[in-house]
Amino acid sequence: MIFLKIVKKGHSKHIYQQIYEELKKSILERKITVNEKLPSKRNLAEQLNVSVNSVSNAYEQLLAEGYIYTIERKGYFVENITQYIDQHEARAVNFPIDLKEQHHDKGGWLSLSHMTSDISMFPFKKWLKCQNEAIKNHRQELSEITSPQGPYIVRKTISRMIALTRGVKCEPEQIIIGGGTQPLVRQFMTLLKGNTKVAIENPGYSRIHALLKSMKFDVAPINLDKKGIDMKEIESINPKILFITPSHQFPTGIIMPISRRIELLNWAAHSNDRYIVEDDYDSEFKYGTDNIPSLQSLDRHHRVIYTGTFSKTLLPSFRISYIVLPPKLLREYRNFYSNWIQGSNSFSLFTLHYFIESGEYERHIKRMNHHYEMKRKLLIKQLQATFKDDIEIKNVPAGLHFLAHFKKNKRYEDINEKAKQEKLEIYSIERFNLDSKYKKDETSISLVMGFATIKTEEIPEAVNRLYRIIN
Amino acid sequence: MIFLKIVKKGHSKHIYQQIYEELKKSILERKITVNEKLPSKRNLAEQLNVSVNSVSNAYEQLLAEGYIYTIERKGYFVENITQYIDQHEARAVNFPIDLKEQHHDKGGWLSLSHMTSDISMFPFKKWLKCQNEAIKNHRQELSEITSPQGPYIVRKTISRMIALTRGVKCEPEQIIIGGGTQPLVRQFMTLLKGNTKVAIENPGYSRIHALLKSMKFDVAPINLDKKGIDMKEIESINPKILFITPSHQFPTGIIMPISRRIELLNWAAHSNDRYIVEDDYDSEFKYGTDNIPSLQSLDRHHRVIYTGTFSKTLLPSFRISYIVLPPKLLREYRNFYSNWIQGSNSFSLFTLHYFIESGEYERHIKRMNHHYEMKRKLLIKQLQATFKDDIEIKNVPAGLHFLAHFKKNKRYEDINEKAKQEKLEIYSIERFNLDSKYKKDETSISLVMGFATIKTEEIPEAVNRLYRIIN
Repeated sequence: MIFLKIVKKGHSKHIYQQIYEELKKSILERKITVNEKLPSKRNLAEQLNVSVNSVSNAYEQLLAEGYIYTIERKGYFVENITQYIDQHEARAVNFPIDLKEQHHDKGGWLSLSHMTSDISMFPFKKWLKCQNEAIKNHRQELSEITSPQGPYIVRKTISRMIALTRGVKCEPEQIIIGGGTQPLVRQFMTLLKGNTKVAIENPGYSRIHALLKSMKFDVAPINLDKKGIDMKEIESINPKILFITPSHQFPTGIIMPISRRIELLNWAAHSNDRYIVEDDYDSEFKYGTDNIPSLQSLDRHHRVIYTGTFSKTLLPSFRISYIVLPPKLLREYRNFYSNWIQGSNSFSLFTLHYFIESGEYERHIKRMNHHYEMKRKLLIKQLQATFKDDIEIKNVPAGLHFLAHFKKNKRYEDINEKAKQEKLEIYSIERFNLDSKYKKDETSISLVMGFATIKTEEIPEAVNRLYRIIN
Repeated sequence: MIFLKIVKKGHSKHIYQQIYEELKKSILERKITVNEKLPSKRNLAEQLNVSVNSVSNAYEQLLAEGYIYTIERKGYFVENITQYIDQHEARAVNFPIDLKEQHHDKGGWLSLSHMTSDISMFPFKKWLKCQNEAIKNHRQELSEITSPQGPYIVRKTISRMIALTRGVKCEPEQIIIGGGTQPLVRQFMTLLKGNTKVAIENPGYSRIHALLKSMKFDVAPINLDKKGIDMKEIESINPKILFITPSHQFPTGIIMPISRRIELLNWAAHSNDRYIVEDDYDSEFKYGTDNIPSLQSLDRHHRVIYTGTFSKTLLPSFRISYIVLPPKLLREYRNFYSNWIQGSNSFSLFTLHYFIESGEYERHIKRMNHHYEMKRKLLIKQLQATFKDDIEIKNVPAGLHFLAHFKKNKRYEDINEKAKQEKLEIYSIERFNLDSKYKKDETSISLVMGFATIKTEEIPEAVNRLYRIIN
């Protein structure tokens, strides 16, 4: 005789679920012995005063999960289940407290972060319209996984666009779309063997530096002179791969002149296994001059790997970036990643395709260029009015941030602490210093001033906070 | 004297752009010597009969790009530019023909692929409604990059949902969202040291097999018995990590009974560095019984890494998957990936949050479960009517595919060739055989029959084509 507690009315679970759970519990707690015959469906139904159907459903579920087995014309029997040790220990309680995430209230904060973009003017309506085009025209493709490099039609649109705006010359075949520069860099860097020496600008993009180090590359940070990455250091260190941001050096803002570009391309052309990775992260924004053609546009030896992103021009949360691989690397890529599934949402990618094709993308960039130029001017004006002779601004009219030096001796830890009190998000140059031996200049403080997120009307207050932080 | 060709009317480019380009060309082709002084803006303007402004803009652009330099009160001079070798070689022409992508017309094709989902009933309207909620409530977050593991609120919703539907017990902290199972597996497997031995079901998911091999793991395919992965082989091979699909073995369909589950968990609990990766790729679909709780739900020793996906329940093109890491691995993950940016589109993720919260997700699954059950029944019926005694169907009422054996000796190459002629997308078991020494059984053909994409009314025609392919 089996005793089961079944509640017939007002219970949140169906009767068959209750029978199933009670029986499962009895089996796991060994209240019913291994190989014991269960009552027939009819008998149990009578005993519990429930329908045979309910018992039948419960038995089917136990059978599917392997708690019981059946012998034809004989009935249902309990499986031999090795009792799992300390079955009843609750785990949730055990979750280590140090792994709990802290969620800070961002209310009242202002941001001079360089990592954001201005969402206030994002044309969501037009984006949604392009989504409808995507649904209408790509229904079939949305039910499938796409090409490993991303939908061809989207790559074709990107290749046309960057030919026009950045002078990049490539076939759609050479483009690989991905959810950010990091995963794309990881993908192609995986193709390169073990102890490869890699050089990166210093100060530079610390996330890429961290990624390359985590991949066990021999990474050398290389200092900058006024034209950008130092040519002599490159020649003495002799890396295979060079990571640079020629259009607008991150974070110093240097625009690499044509002479240094040509020196670099000549350096790369010297050997078949040298590559320059050109990270063109925010080249769409220029104030006063036209865009400067990419380094890739000058490369005649397939030595440049170009990386671009929609994080600055659209939204960073969209995570749409791409790389352009030279043919030799592309061939290696295809061989290595033949089983790889494209990780970006095709729905967003097709939407992007229509957004570009319809001209909305270009219009949006123009609008934003104007808007950012205005905010940038205002921020610089306010900084100069407030800090007077104590500030030196690296006034390169490009991108979504600039570097500012403040004549003040203060530790960055103190700046960060004070910024927290003042509720101002601001990043110092320290974050981008990739050389472990680096010593802070004792006469000044350098901050990366991002102006993408801050609202025009918030600029005076942000600069006031900054003044209190620094003084 | 400098000669420039300027077209004043009807040219697609502004006059300043033409001056800029002509001057740049002259400098690159050394028609103007290094350090030569350029005419003053006024002089050149007069010579070309254009406005001073046009010349000024052209000079500014050349200055920004570093083609010329300026000495105060003296004027503009040509920079010393090392001429780049074979400047004029066109590259596009050189793009290797073997890297060109082939685009096949899919018109007239029918598909029994296991990789798709049915888009015909996807509630786009409701999805778009949830998007609007995302825009309304997460504007600020959409202008930023999110937490490396994905937005907390989305992870919280997923953790609640899988607790309910899969018995998975975890904190939102343990969830990592990513653009597919592949990149997520690569992420946590990167945490494991060099020569780790890894075991995987055979036949099994070949993409994961390929990924693990490309990561240089020592991968052992392990055969299946009727309960799933073979326990004895595991004990003799002694891997550290085990990749399994207990809810619905891919591709054979075996539902792992509780006894084997407990054996596996006991095996894993024996050592602190053993892990079981439970790939729960299509457990949402069950016909006739309820869902079977996940292996993770039975694990009391934090030995199971759970991986789930929305590729089957929503659309594979959305690329939304997640893993649940045990605390020890989570700590290592956080240390290693502290600089990592979440690669999924937050806009889709917040949308998913509202889609689940509003109950739409559950309703959609219910609808699809019913729809798939019907298509599945019809396909089986049609197959049995057509192939009669020559077919044996592994009738496991779960998932979006089943395995079928055909009593026929034919090479898979011939099947594939014939399928192309008949315009039927179909995959044989060969694709999932991970053992290089594997020899095809000469008495039968095994095919993976996916029924997600095929329309009800297309089923008879698809089975007819299949009949012609096999006979």
